[in-house]
Amino acid sequence: MVAKVVERQMGVALWRQIADRIRLAISNGDYDATGMVPPETALAAEFGVNRHTVRSALAALAEEGLVRAVQGRGTMIERKDRVSYPISRRTRFSQGLGRQVREIGTELLGHAQVPASGEIATALGVPPGTPLIELSTVSSGDGRPLSTAVSYYPAERFARMAEEYAQLGSVTKAFAAHGLDDYVRVSTEIVARHAEAEELSLLKLSPGAIVMETQSVNADLEGRPVEYSRTRFAADRVKLRIET
Amino acid sequence: MVAKVVERQMGVALWRQIADRIRLAISNGDYDATGMVPPETALAAEFGVNRHTVRSALAALAEEGLVRAVQGRGTMIERKDRVSYPISRRTRFSQGLGRQVREIGTELLGHAQVPASGEIATALGVPPGTPLIELSTVSSGDGRPLSTAVSYYPAERFARMAEEYAQLGSVTKAFAAHGLDDYVRVSTEIVARHAEAEELSLLKLSPGAIVMETQSVNADLEGRPVEYSRTRFAADRVKLRIET
Repeated sequence: MVAKVVERQMGVALWRQIADRIRLAISNGDYDATGMVPPETALAAEFGVNRHTVRSALAALAEEGLVRAVQGRGTMIERKDRVSYPISRRTRFSQGLGRQVREIGTELLGHAQVPASGEIATALGVPPGTPLIELSTVSSGDGRPLSTAVSYYPAERFARMAEEYAQLGSVTKAFAAHGLDDYVRVSTEIVARHAEAEELSLLKLSPGAIVMETQSVNADLEGRPVEYSRTRFAADRVKLRIET
Repeated sequence: MVAKVVERQMGVALWRQIADRIRLAISNGDYDATGMVPPETALAAEFGVNRHTVRSALAALAEEGLVRAVQGRGTMIERKDRVSYPISRRTRFSQGLGRQVREIGTELLGHAQVPASGEIATALGVPPGTPLIELSTVSSGDGRPLSTAVSYYPAERFARMAEEYAQLGSVTKAFAAHGLDDYVRVSTEIVARHAEAEELSLLKLSPGAIVMETQSVNADLEGRPVEYSRTRFAADRVKLRIET
């Protein structure tokens, strides 16, 4: 019984490992001369695995939108370039992406009113237990998920945050609807790690994929925090550009 | 023949996968209550693998310094906290880490004079082919490798960069030795990806580990670029703190 589970997991792990290596080669520009991933037979020989395993790896990368199978030609590299997302004193999600994507999608996955817990209360400068509006969102560019976030807002000041965001599709506009016309980024921390199961699903990634997680605080021009966010960016699709 | 290679790779991949999951659980704080990784038997049951595989995964994480086996007690979490590395207009490696580490180590791995190539020439604002000094370095905190970098300096202006860095152990001091007393960060881009073989070796990481790669330009106070760097941070050991 246990042996069977091992076998299955080993199979999963093998195509994951091959997918990781192809992902890295694409990101390194190893295939830039042709814009194509080498033929399955060549990859199978290079990695010492069978074609079925290579095919599973390529299928996972295709599902992420990184490569695309083209009838009679092979596997094309579809999206090598990462969208460049600026982090500056005036960070605005939709403006930030500018002309890099034609269409920005924002989706409100859920919302709730929750009491401020330790770390978040500290970041927002409110006593623990203060009511906060919690928004869960996912954002995409041209249909490709770029990031997913959980964000917190003082409920007293931003009572209609969920409704306004759902309708306007923008935090900046939802703030404006509450009379807040300007805000600035106070702090940002960045870590990188393997994506968790929920992130894989929300960002349409395959196992082994990486996320960059930012924890950020925005404040109004008087310095009062208005937003705490934990945002997970798909590392294969986004690079962060810091403007200091 | 091929089947044998597969089997070996599958074994490698399996402990890698288990190591990744333990790594993630540590980073999530799943074991914070005890400060210990669960016993090998519990992990083996949880992941449906045998104890030998769990032991290989823990050995790899121990080599990275993330956990430590304690005689008769089990496996302690050694280094959960990431060092926080600030990126601001005035980024200085050694000052940046402040009191987070007792001892900062810098090592010059190698140096060369090379002609400026396309991307680097553009970043430094010099014509392609301009002679540059190239430094390869690795930096550590309390003996733990934190980052490895390849940096480029206009050779005419910073002729003794390699010698000064080797002697002074600091880019800031090596600049000062050339009469440059102040410089500022102009731009930083950040991506995250799996570490390559050379990075695994330099940073003493195990396969599957992640690096955050920054590409940055520093300039003198007149705006002339003085340094282009490509730095790879071990993602399990460093978080980046952006000061905008």
